[in-house]
Amino acid sequence: MAATETTGTTMDYAARIARAQGEMARQGIDWLLVAPSSDLVYLLGYPAHTSERLTALATPQGGGEPFIVIPRLEAPRLGARQDLLEILDLRVWEETDNPIQLLASGLGNPQGKTIAVSDQMWSGFLLKLMAAAPGATFVNADLVLKGLRQIKAADEIACMREAGRLTDEAWEEFVATTTLAGKTENAVGQILAAQMAKRGLGPPAFMIVASGAGSASPHYLTSDKVIAEGDAVVFDFGGNIEGYKSDITRTVHVGEPSAEFRAVYAIVDEARAQTFAAIRPGLPCEEVDAVARRVITDAGYGEYFIHRVGHGLGLDVHEEPYLVGGNRAPLRPGMVFSDEPGIYLPGRFGIRIEDSVLCTEGGGELLNNARRDLIVMR
Amino acid sequence: MAATETTGTTMDYAARIARAQGEMARQGIDWLLVAPSSDLVYLLGYPAHTSERLTALATPQGGGEPFIVIPRLEAPRLGARQDLLEILDLRVWEETDNPIQLLASGLGNPQGKTIAVSDQMWSGFLLKLMAAAPGATFVNADLVLKGLRQIKAADEIACMREAGRLTDEAWEEFVATTTLAGKTENAVGQILAAQMAKRGLGPPAFMIVASGAGSASPHYLTSDKVIAEGDAVVFDFGGNIEGYKSDITRTVHVGEPSAEFRAVYAIVDEARAQTFAAIRPGLPCEEVDAVARRVITDAGYGEYFIHRVGHGLGLDVHEEPYLVGGNRAPLRPGMVFSDEPGIYLPGRFGIRIEDSVLCTEGGGELLNNARRDLIVMR
Repeated sequence: MAATETTGTTMDYAARIARAQGEMARQGIDWLLVAPSSDLVYLLGYPAHTSERLTALATPQGGGEPFIVIPRLEAPRLGARQDLLEILDLRVWEETDNPIQLLASGLGNPQGKTIAVSDQMWSGFLLKLMAAAPGATFVNADLVLKGLRQIKAADEIACMREAGRLTDEAWEEFVATTTLAGKTENAVGQILAAQMAKRGLGPPAFMIVASGAGSASPHYLTSDKVIAEGDAVVFDFGGNIEGYKSDITRTVHVGEPSAEFRAVYAIVDEARAQTFAAIRPGLPCEEVDAVARRVITDAGYGEYFIHRVGHGLGLDVHEEPYLVGGNRAPLRPGMVFSDEPGIYLPGRFGIRIEDSVLCTEGGGELLNNARRDLIVMR
Repeated sequence: MAATETTGTTMDYAARIARAQGEMARQGIDWLLVAPSSDLVYLLGYPAHTSERLTALATPQGGGEPFIVIPRLEAPRLGARQDLLEILDLRVWEETDNPIQLLASGLGNPQGKTIAVSDQMWSGFLLKLMAAAPGATFVNADLVLKGLRQIKAADEIACMREAGRLTDEAWEEFVATTTLAGKTENAVGQILAAQMAKRGLGPPAFMIVASGAGSASPHYLTSDKVIAEGDAVVFDFGGNIEGYKSDITRTVHVGEPSAEFRAVYAIVDEARAQTFAAIRPGLPCEEVDAVARRVITDAGYGEYFIHRVGHGLGLDVHEEPYLVGGNRAPLRPGMVFSDEPGIYLPGRFGIRIEDSVLCTEGGGELLNNARRDLIVMR
């Protein structure tokens, strides 16, 4: 598996684990089990790949030493991490061992214990673990990790500012030097990806190039469709610095756009701007969403704004907090999230404009500053 | 998200679902719930990306119509699949809906029901579903799907033969036209990836380029390490045709190898060859592994062969059957798996040679035929 991200071996993982243990004590959670995922990257800086071979970090409440169950053939990767060997017991399993038993036995008597499992652990593992640890109560590890991860520390914010700035640069060089008409979406995506790679952003964490009618599908799969004069093209992409993601969307038009396209573009950008202006600590997440929705609804396009206005960003492209109706949690300083309203006219075109934003004591700070005027490309 | 694979919309998904329903009836399983994963690609040809937004296919036992819970913004992707709309009820959820409730209510009264959930469904979803469906018993959907998926049908075998053949071609052009010394592992991996892409194999499903001491770590993460004269370099890579993967490993040496390296190479290749020769229906999986292990152990390197000899291959790079000690399941015609013994001398070098193999009535059929002699590169 090729490395898709570097990891921040300079970060203080012992401190992150200690914070998690403190939160566990507060909530009465006995064990925190973390499978390969961004949660594991957060706690250890270890980007293990998810597979049928169980890897799981098990952290006890309080100050006890965590252990990690890890397959033999992946052990060399952790064995090279001197910083982790000091804070972590490696329990290596051989190809013919039962790793679930190894994990369960490490947890001690399960009776009456509360065990938090990371959100992305495969259900197949959880079901086996439930059978191996009767009498325990299983809960979602987000109870512990969500609160920690959604408030970025200074070292995390530094990575995300850098990722945003470099992504802006990649975009601006791309639009200044590239033509779209006659190229496939995939080919164009590769050109943009190369601009990102040469700035140290790694291979794209994601790359949507959605043209023509495809632009009206927010999670369009980039294809070998040839981009043509008259197409709207939505670019939604991000890279990473030390595992921390950037996320930006810009929509361009190939050839001269219609008056309607220009009008819808202006509405989306106004929604984006008003949403950004509203950001301040204490504002409920759902009210951030409501700002954008009000602008678009007042302009008559409410039914075509078919997704939440934003999502948290960090080691994951989508993480807490979600800026969506029903989420009454307040914004807090250190949260990073997207501001990405859109209008999608089925079969015709879609427009989305997205920046990543940091919530500070004084309001929002833009992590993306690439030009937002409507760009007409060739 | 960029498309990482095409899907076989020409395949007969209704027949696959019907086979699953028959197997459910046989085992007394009431519902089969499938989250985004290769299981969903198998049943629907729908490569949904896994995210915090729940997508789940729910299939009842017998001939009842399946439904799929899908977020609004991904619905256009299925809406374009006329073949699926005929066999499937789309239940689209809006951003402010509770998708777990939508799913649970579709299952009816859960009391006493047996619900199989796909192996890779996130635990976070499973825990919520367990709370929403009290009185149900949850089991792993592998009970149903593993048996179906591990026996490849003719359309699947055709894809895998093609994927193997094109991957061989990419490798042979790569070794004939590339030098390694002075290039980084990542750069070399990109050159090989380009050879694959131009043959229609898509972006690599995985790409390990492990040089020098890194070659002794079977799941090494390809890095910006510069390859040097005297390095062993393990290439383990694959692409896909219609989602079906290829998987091949070749180990080369940069500059003239030592006599010891040549000797170890010959042992690994002998283990590979004897393993291939042993393949026939009825042979227990663990005995396939034992063949390779015996060759390597007899040569004095048993402790350095630290992984199973092979794994199934198909829509996943690793799937059933696993050729590993303890797995007494017999080989059956239609199974496709890797034959990949290796010897890893820590801190020095590793050698792995891998082909993908189809089990037929008459024995093994090689899906990879790229040259296996020791290649000395510059």
